[in-house]
Amino acid sequence: MEFYVMTLFPQMIQQAVSFSILDRAQKQGRIGVHGVDIREYTQDKHRHVDDAPYGGGAGMVMQAPPVYEAYADICKTVGTRPRVAYMTPTGTPFTQKKAKELAKEEALVLLCGHYEGIDQRVIDEIVTDPISIGDYVLTGGELPALVVIDAVARMVEGVLGNEESAGEESFSGMLLEYPQYTRPATFHEQDVPEVLMEGNHEAIRRWRLERSMEITMRNRPDLLIPEKMSREERGIYERLREKFLEKSLAR
Amino acid sequence: MEFYVMTLFPQMIQQAVSFSILDRAQKQGRIGVHGVDIREYTQDKHRHVDDAPYGGGAGMVMQAPPVYEAYADICKTVGTRPRVAYMTPTGTPFTQKKAKELAKEEALVLLCGHYEGIDQRVIDEIVTDPISIGDYVLTGGELPALVVIDAVARMVEGVLGNEESAGEESFSGMLLEYPQYTRPATFHEQDVPEVLMEGNHEAIRRWRLERSMEITMRNRPDLLIPEKMSREERGIYERLREKFLEKSLAR
Repeated sequence: MEFYVMTLFPQMIQQAVSFSILDRAQKQGRIGVHGVDIREYTQDKHRHVDDAPYGGGAGMVMQAPPVYEAYADICKTVGTRPRVAYMTPTGTPFTQKKAKELAKEEALVLLCGHYEGIDQRVIDEIVTDPISIGDYVLTGGELPALVVIDAVARMVEGVLGNEESAGEESFSGMLLEYPQYTRPATFHEQDVPEVLMEGNHEAIRRWRLERSMEITMRNRPDLLIPEKMSREERGIYERLREKFLEKSLAR
Repeated sequence: MEFYVMTLFPQMIQQAVSFSILDRAQKQGRIGVHGVDIREYTQDKHRHVDDAPYGGGAGMVMQAPPVYEAYADICKTVGTRPRVAYMTPTGTPFTQKKAKELAKEEALVLLCGHYEGIDQRVIDEIVTDPISIGDYVLTGGELPALVVIDAVARMVEGVLGNEESAGEESFSGMLLEYPQYTRPATFHEQDVPEVLMEGNHEAIRRWRLERSMEITMRNRPDLLIPEKMSREERGIYERLREKFLEKSLAR
């Protein structure tokens, strides 16, 4: 899968994907990440790519023509008109489901805004997927684009090794992950929970499910949908809920 | 404000913050960003920092001792025990409100996990703020840490210039941002909306508010809380809702 990142900071993109799993995936030829410098496509003699907004207001707006020309050039390289994900706080929230969907594309363009955004006319013309990675304000679209590339690339076949199964991690299911422990057996006088040392697989599975339910209840109650739970999950859920309720009444 | 990022990839952090506003803020001495290499604190002769999880399962878990030693060293440098934000999909969702809250700290530690996570005992001991930047699975905590640094640093006094007011952007209020336009006046036969060219400030304000409401309704209806709206917003909201309803009935 090929990622094309339209940005004013192509170097930042190239550097950030040269570590860990994304680096390996590129060397193995499973993905390619290309920074496309929007500034290269300006006709302005001072290489400006932004101007004041019509109607007034603070800040500068990125102009339509260089953004469009950069996209047209990518289309020529790819030979098709790939989907364009625009990184914007006004987009629809990015989810694991969206990552899986985008991983089916052969090429994906990521458009990074800066300043007060990009002229709406070029957005209307080329953007297929306006994406927000979360409810916070960032300097530009580069970090969001990197987040999307990371999440999508992991879903591309062959990118994760056998050791890095995508299956058990948070948001693949609806429960958050249970706590993990590794050697040493004792750290600062804290032992590893006994059940994990005893080798009873069924007891371990059950303990982990309970811990997952517990942490999800504490940090992300919005993810818990009783109707979608298995009978076992539902039982644990009801019991934990009672415990939580007792605690808050005791206060 | 000083950021200390505990990571296996300190170089990735240092590079990614050397662009744009974060670069300028560092040069002006308003923030500092320090990559702290957890691997430097391992006692293992092969410099391993991970081991298999107790209780079995795929992947590797980062060990408690090197993480703790790295934190202890940061505490020595800072002279206090700064808050520790742990980047994890099991954390509470990161928001603009949280960014503002963290921006009041003098120092903030960001802990980046990799593999299947970090031994829970050291998390229990040092972490004050488990943070999730969104509902998707990433390779490690580095990109989330960069996202948090970016959002928090923008809220530190003096980091944004006069041109980059933090006020009007999405999520500072509850509405998404209205579309922006800049020169040229005509792009691919599309003109800038007339109201923006006419200089009637009240008409522009009203038009922008309507567009904000419209895009919020389309992409993020969850953000709209009628009870919190002004009378004017409420009027626009009711009218747009009727229009939306008619459209969906017409289908």
